[in-house]
Amino acid sequence: MTPDEFRHYGHEAVDWIAGYLENPGRYPVFPKVEPGELIDALPKCAPEKGEPVEKLLEDFRSLVVPGMTHWNHPGFMAYFAITGSGPGILGEMLSAALNVNGMLWRTSPAATELEQVALGWLRQWIGLPDNFFGIIYDTASISSMHAIAAARELAEPEARVRGGTGNLTLYTSEQAHSSIEKGAIAIGIGQRNVRKIPVDEAFRMRVDLLEEAIEKDLAAGLRPFCVAATVGTTSTTSVDPLDPIADLTERHNLWLHVDAAYGGGAAILPEFQHILAGARRADSVVTNPHKWLFTPADLSAFFTRRPDILRRAFSLIPEYLRTPDQPRAVNFMDYGVQLGRRFRALKLWFVMRYFGREGVSELIRKHIGWAQELASWIDADARFERSAPAPFSVVCFRLKGSDDDNRRLLDRVNASGEVFLSHTALHGRFVLRLAIGNIATTHAHVERAWELVRQAV
Amino acid sequence: MTPDEFRHYGHEAVDWIAGYLENPGRYPVFPKVEPGELIDALPKCAPEKGEPVEKLLEDFRSLVVPGMTHWNHPGFMAYFAITGSGPGILGEMLSAALNVNGMLWRTSPAATELEQVALGWLRQWIGLPDNFFGIIYDTASISSMHAIAAARELAEPEARVRGGTGNLTLYTSEQAHSSIEKGAIAIGIGQRNVRKIPVDEAFRMRVDLLEEAIEKDLAAGLRPFCVAATVGTTSTTSVDPLDPIADLTERHNLWLHVDAAYGGGAAILPEFQHILAGARRADSVVTNPHKWLFTPADLSAFFTRRPDILRRAFSLIPEYLRTPDQPRAVNFMDYGVQLGRRFRALKLWFVMRYFGREGVSELIRKHIGWAQELASWIDADARFERSAPAPFSVVCFRLKGSDDDNRRLLDRVNASGEVFLSHTALHGRFVLRLAIGNIATTHAHVERAWELVRQAV
Repeated sequence: MTPDEFRHYGHEAVDWIAGYLENPGRYPVFPKVEPGELIDALPKCAPEKGEPVEKLLEDFRSLVVPGMTHWNHPGFMAYFAITGSGPGILGEMLSAALNVNGMLWRTSPAATELEQVALGWLRQWIGLPDNFFGIIYDTASISSMHAIAAARELAEPEARVRGGTGNLTLYTSEQAHSSIEKGAIAIGIGQRNVRKIPVDEAFRMRVDLLEEAIEKDLAAGLRPFCVAATVGTTSTTSVDPLDPIADLTERHNLWLHVDAAYGGGAAILPEFQHILAGARRADSVVTNPHKWLFTPADLSAFFTRRPDILRRAFSLIPEYLRTPDQPRAVNFMDYGVQLGRRFRALKLWFVMRYFGREGVSELIRKHIGWAQELASWIDADARFERSAPAPFSVVCFRLKGSDDDNRRLLDRVNASGEVFLSHTALHGRFVLRLAIGNIATTHAHVERAWELVRQAV
Repeated sequence: MTPDEFRHYGHEAVDWIAGYLENPGRYPVFPKVEPGELIDALPKCAPEKGEPVEKLLEDFRSLVVPGMTHWNHPGFMAYFAITGSGPGILGEMLSAALNVNGMLWRTSPAATELEQVALGWLRQWIGLPDNFFGIIYDTASISSMHAIAAARELAEPEARVRGGTGNLTLYTSEQAHSSIEKGAIAIGIGQRNVRKIPVDEAFRMRVDLLEEAIEKDLAAGLRPFCVAATVGTTSTTSVDPLDPIADLTERHNLWLHVDAAYGGGAAILPEFQHILAGARRADSVVTNPHKWLFTPADLSAFFTRRPDILRRAFSLIPEYLRTPDQPRAVNFMDYGVQLGRRFRALKLWFVMRYFGREGVSELIRKHIGWAQELASWIDADARFERSAPAPFSVVCFRLKGSDDDNRRLLDRVNASGEVFLSHTALHGRFVLRLAIGNIATTHAHVERAWELVRQAV
């Protein structure tokens, strides 16, 4: 593609994006498609000869876009309602063009250093001290897997050479994200060595039961090595009590990992910074700017007080990647599984600068405020009940009735195409989840969502 | 950012990209910077108040770009010379705007199905049969880690629950990429259980020694479970003999993983398709369109004949991600560590359609041809010697002289700013590596690179 062609179609793509972002609500948030529809509509084989760009963009608009679930839709209130933002998209465009692999300082000094700078800024915003080293991974799943692997390295340094022994035990709450258990499975800890500690009435890890579980495992000759606490669990956004947990992990010399993939966003607000106060005592913390910091996916920010341990777990330098030692040159490939590292820091740096801390805080504060308002509406409607506290921007609630009543309610609401909610299970019951976090969502959209829910009863 | 603002600055970014791609050779390929320069030039804290977009783009141009190693530079001939392309960048722009998480079919039907379509096309291009299931991961490191984990699942299904036992043994050649060993370390196999099989004079895995190693481990009560063969090793692009290896893995019921991260690109050419013929018998194959298929990073294509095993290794469905069973709806989150999955298929689909198989083949064929030509020039110059066969587009060579002579030569060549080569070690000696793969590279750039090398003697 010649530069002129790129200029021409690049402008066309930008215009499409601008038009799309002007009103992502024009599409149903969840598309009216059946599985296999797009597959059936496309050729079974790639073309032998190249096709004109017009055709690509036309198929994108007419076949792909109508089959998307629109995460940009202001009525997208499912899972965690993540969104990008204009400056984030600009960052991704430029990164895609530069297309560097930041595995070594040498393979792109500016990409490496901008990652250090942007993560230093973010670290300050969420109130972590400067002895935390920052690195960008793709997802919180991978960040947490690295945390668990680093914890293993600390507890059982011989595992790197000898392989797993199958007697290390990991503790997390029964409300923790599935990625903690999956990470433990992946690195060979074993599912039966993952203790899912029960939670209190606010879905927070029960520290007394955590202590009991650790003591019991120690007595049984097992080797507790890691506690993964959560700030903003996936179902209810509950916050585990970090300080009492840190008391335990310090006493037993366990790695404390804090999964703040979602909740870390809120910690940017002065009035919410206390939620990560205990994380200063953690060994590692993950927060995802691609969740609640208006940064396009993927970008997971991982911080650790023990970069030496992380590096000992993962460093492996073949001759073809050996570069001269330079004290200030960080080679991020030494700190993880992935050798390939695209230039993700740019979009985060753009987002943080474009909005500033005030701009970001204002948006997040609104999201939290609207969720609190919605919670009060639910509390005031006798047909509904709230299923959990709503400390941030997610509200869990249900119709007083059977699980099937609630399933049908959710289906009817989502069939509107105006809003997309998700669900979870709490105390074994089916619960609706309404998550606010989309940059396009306004107070009116939250009102409309509640109206749709009430109408669907 | 309003849509109009995005339109304005989006056009500015596109114009910058078009200008950049018009002549990436205007910058030195490796920047003249010292570690820490960019860090020192930037504020220590993020701004409290938002900044104008002009300022962001200006800093990008004046501070970031001059500190980049330019992988787009036609003289970038280090590592594997990867490049994106116009249609790939357009795909990334649109994906960044849509910003979906394709974890479930439901969270973006079109993203899921386009991944199935694009990987089906690619599978055909590289000659794998249709019983191979395709999935996109971020990097080959992660693809290979998943292969090793699936191999463990097959050999020791109880490992998922019980954790590693530390007696599974993995085989790869001493020329294999470090990611194989790193993957084995990560999932708890242990470095001492990774056998690095010696290679023949062409740097191909010695099948006789592989067989010996397997027999020896079996006799010692260890449990061979996986062989990772390579098509296009990192140092010399050698190709392991897949068919004889598959004879062994079939006889011993071992998982055969083929790392064709680089070499898979060449398999698109009819005259090179034979290099993956034996891979039809493999359990898994990885190839990286972000290496030699003009697709911006990251996009690693993983194919497996055993999706059931991969899924058994990784599936973990919490209630909040449970969706109704629909026969044709694939939930890619079931097949990997990462829950977050950005919409990577779009850029690959654009690239394959824009170039067509003929267009892609023509480019790759040229790269291989120029490398062969360069090899003949080296062979004809008595001051130099080639250090390995050059089956694809990478040439390994050295000055007849000491390692230090060669190190100095490499430094002098790279100091030109016109070309960037890397190095490796073969038979314990320092060797220069010249890799062709950049879409902007022409025959004249290869000639110039050789001229610079000769002048630097």
